[in-house]
Amino acid sequence: MSKNYTVADYLLDRLAQIGIRHFFGVPGDYNLQFLDHVIDHQQITWVGCANELNAAYAADGYARCKPAAALLTTFGVGELSAINGIAGSYAEYLPVIHIVGAPALRAQRAGDLLHHSLGDGDFGHFARMAKEVTVAQASLTASNAEAEIDRVLTTALFERRPVYLLLPSDVAEASLASRPAPLILRQPNLSEYSLQAFIVAAREKLQAAKRVSLLADFLAERFGAGSALENWMNEVNIPHSTLLLGKGVLDESHACFTGTYAAAASDPQTKQLIEDADVIINVGVRFTDTITAGFSHNLPSQKCIDIQPFECRVGQQVFSQIPMCDAVKALHQLTLPLARFWSLPTFKCPSLPDSSESCLDQHGFWQQIQSFLQPGDILIAEQGTSCFGAAALTLPRGCQFIVQSLWGSIGYTLPAAFGAQTAEPLRRVVLLIGDGAAQLTAQELGTMLRDGQKPVIFLLNNDGYTVERAIHGPEQRYNDIAQWDWTRLPQAMAIDHQMTSLRVSSPEQLRQALAGIGDHQQLVFIEVVLPKMDIPELLDTVSKAIQSRNAAA
Amino acid sequence: MSKNYTVADYLLDRLAQIGIRHFFGVPGDYNLQFLDHVIDHQQITWVGCANELNAAYAADGYARCKPAAALLTTFGVGELSAINGIAGSYAEYLPVIHIVGAPALRAQRAGDLLHHSLGDGDFGHFARMAKEVTVAQASLTASNAEAEIDRVLTTALFERRPVYLLLPSDVAEASLASRPAPLILRQPNLSEYSLQAFIVAAREKLQAAKRVSLLADFLAERFGAGSALENWMNEVNIPHSTLLLGKGVLDESHACFTGTYAAAASDPQTKQLIEDADVIINVGVRFTDTITAGFSHNLPSQKCIDIQPFECRVGQQVFSQIPMCDAVKALHQLTLPLARFWSLPTFKCPSLPDSSESCLDQHGFWQQIQSFLQPGDILIAEQGTSCFGAAALTLPRGCQFIVQSLWGSIGYTLPAAFGAQTAEPLRRVVLLIGDGAAQLTAQELGTMLRDGQKPVIFLLNNDGYTVERAIHGPEQRYNDIAQWDWTRLPQAMAIDHQMTSLRVSSPEQLRQALAGIGDHQQLVFIEVVLPKMDIPELLDTVSKAIQSRNAAA
Repeated sequence: MSKNYTVADYLLDRLAQIGIRHFFGVPGDYNLQFLDHVIDHQQITWVGCANELNAAYAADGYARCKPAAALLTTFGVGELSAINGIAGSYAEYLPVIHIVGAPALRAQRAGDLLHHSLGDGDFGHFARMAKEVTVAQASLTASNAEAEIDRVLTTALFERRPVYLLLPSDVAEASLASRPAPLILRQPNLSEYSLQAFIVAAREKLQAAKRVSLLADFLAERFGAGSALENWMNEVNIPHSTLLLGKGVLDESHACFTGTYAAAASDPQTKQLIEDADVIINVGVRFTDTITAGFSHNLPSQKCIDIQPFECRVGQQVFSQIPMCDAVKALHQLTLPLARFWSLPTFKCPSLPDSSESCLDQHGFWQQIQSFLQPGDILIAEQGTSCFGAAALTLPRGCQFIVQSLWGSIGYTLPAAFGAQTAEPLRRVVLLIGDGAAQLTAQELGTMLRDGQKPVIFLLNNDGYTVERAIHGPEQRYNDIAQWDWTRLPQAMAIDHQMTSLRVSSPEQLRQALAGIGDHQQLVFIEVVLPKMDIPELLDTVSKAIQSRNAAA
Repeated sequence: MSKNYTVADYLLDRLAQIGIRHFFGVPGDYNLQFLDHVIDHQQITWVGCANELNAAYAADGYARCKPAAALLTTFGVGELSAINGIAGSYAEYLPVIHIVGAPALRAQRAGDLLHHSLGDGDFGHFARMAKEVTVAQASLTASNAEAEIDRVLTTALFERRPVYLLLPSDVAEASLASRPAPLILRQPNLSEYSLQAFIVAAREKLQAAKRVSLLADFLAERFGAGSALENWMNEVNIPHSTLLLGKGVLDESHACFTGTYAAAASDPQTKQLIEDADVIINVGVRFTDTITAGFSHNLPSQKCIDIQPFECRVGQQVFSQIPMCDAVKALHQLTLPLARFWSLPTFKCPSLPDSSESCLDQHGFWQQIQSFLQPGDILIAEQGTSCFGAAALTLPRGCQFIVQSLWGSIGYTLPAAFGAQTAEPLRRVVLLIGDGAAQLTAQELGTMLRDGQKPVIFLLNNDGYTVERAIHGPEQRYNDIAQWDWTRLPQAMAIDHQMTSLRVSSPEQLRQALAGIGDHQQLVFIEVVLPKMDIPELLDTVSKAIQSRNAAA
């Protein structure tokens, strides 16, 4: 192996400098040379996954816990298998650095008929596809490597979105003259003029208000405004809420937290506290169909102050070049003296509905999960009954919530839980996933066991695609799935690894299982048998809205 | 449910007319309305898969046994998960009709912030990506549906490649005035002038020859020249061979079949019989790196007559507008009188190397597989040790061989075997797959069991990615995988289904297992324990060629 300082080493040093400590992926013959350098790198650990889509999901989960993530696949077959995961990272703003090991440049230039190509001598097909779902792309050569790697990585971190680096096998091995100086990250521009104008407009609106509310969503977390928001909410009493995708960005044990806002599908008190205010401040909010029960939010823009990653709006007026954190801090200062003129309704965060003791249903399940959760947990809920049920939970302080509500790729959460647990080995990862979803990506259970991870996995077995049944075709055969013997699955995917695997179908069995988890020294897999058509209220409302939007006019 | 005749019904009738009887896919809320029509259709059966990539692989396997295949996914998440499978069908010429259930047209036109979109109001991203790996695309509307469906389907069958149909949920339900007349397929143009010129040029070359050989490859099968070729070889004695990707297109029990040609990695006798002829006739051949041991074929174009799907070459001279079958028939007639002037060397199809009786190794395994194979089997071999080992087999008459040597996406064969068995329920499907590959797509075992399929599956457990070890990094950690308890896996993926699942690690155990399969009334899963670094000779030669091509100059 070469002891030169190569393009591969440069790239790995840059990844380490931006906070990446693990590299997810699947080996392939066009990336094996590069992989030798990954294995040799002092700060970065290789994490092989069972397939590329799962590796992309794992990288996405990792990027939700760390500054960024890295994914390695091979040309064509590998990168295309992963591309749905990358698209999810694009839709939901996660900086995943996708590195694709490609055929040697000379073979590409000769148009050779290589395996993993389409056989037409055109090696640009997949880079063109990647362009649709990444914010920057580069085809690395020995002479452009330093500049292009720096451009692409800084763009990923600035825009919080995935990027694509094509690394031919011979370029990975090319020598460079020197090691890089530390990477300077790109900072957003702040226009002081624009900020002052924004403050003037916001003051005018807020001074006239009697009631003010605040909604935060996932972009507040992605663009690093979480702690500024928390400071603000701790000093100024404003009833506040999050949308489902941003759940966890605000401390849900705070007295002014009103519950998760889901537009018309919200708890009536939550809806009223948020929507009936005279001014609603939105921080990093995107109103997507599934988390607003089909755009049923009633938040006219003339009542809103809207803070986005790089600009703000007061009513219809746009103030550009204001980074989100600056806007949050400015509103914090602005509202400090104003808030004493606002009325603060008394309210209690909505509690979960009562449950039956005789059989295990959605209500009973979520009540037990509520008391099972601990501060500092990472709670990951699959798009489906899991996330719509979890929306009604009140998260303990410091509990991170991971959901993929906009992209909504089923099966995402199992590998994402693997990625999150890799990022945060000391925190407890709690995964909630349905049987239909788990079948898409089940092999990553084996990877969790291989690495000795100890998540707690709840497999909600409701006999098929219940989220689809709720939308359309409750009794149609296409919503059935192959029936698996779930408690045997973790045992089949490991040799010589201890795990707990059990099945519960009554409230008492679930209670005993949760009590038995105790100090949590191994992976716990609990199959929870739930009625096939028992659907959380929120899912019921949301799915009716989706059904009507999909139907013919 | 509407009793109108809708766009959905029209599309399904067209699929039935082109010979499709099964529809692979995964439900998603944008395709559920369409799925109601699939379920109701008299001639088409819905076949749900565990995930979309597997469904695409299954459709590809089905299209290798039937005129075409159909795949249904949902917008964004589903279609992108499947896109690597579609790219494989594109590279290897399989007409897979990919139908994507999309949001209602009015929501797309409004640019709504919908789930499964990138959240930017642009609903064209994924169709643009599909354009790179399909030969025709259409975005269906109520008014263009008939014309566009017919255009796209006939293109798929003509070019033998996948196509893309975007079907918004409301368009699927739109009424049409009438049912269609039977679909007329597009026929290739034949230029009689060009054909006569080709015959003249070919005669000149063949008349001067003392020895002639013939190589057939996968495109001969794809463009329907298999039986014309067989008739020719039965009447004219020419030493002939196939490349690995086309293995099975020629009857390997024929006296003039010389074994599988792998360029420099061929059996020396095979190489000599093919390469040392004065004229080599190539039918549907593509010289790709893996099946030519890195372009080591020695077949100068001035010695070759090359028949491609729509054109021929004699030396450097091109004759366009000659469909493959016409060219094959013309050469058949031309060679009938000429062949008696050619010398026919005596030879015997190469046999497998001797094996050890003391331990189970690659040699012993392939010898037993050779005698296990029966006429009419469908043998499917994963890219890796499986297909490079299987290359040395002599297939019984009527045995179909499925391999994905050009695209080479690992994990492909397990779902492809499911698809092939769906297409051919009465034939025996024999799958050969390594442990590393099987982990990528293992969940389709459950789908096989759900549908009561009875393939014979050999899981070659050689403890990781042996094909990658052969190329680079034999002892590197990245070529290790999670260790699974394989014989438990089929049991975990089914409830109430009988199957045979066992592990063999000696020649005698394998012999007993094969004898026990007998009349084959249930799925058989045999884990074959093989030495980690025991590599078929062909793979060893090929991988050294690939390694040197990937290395720095």
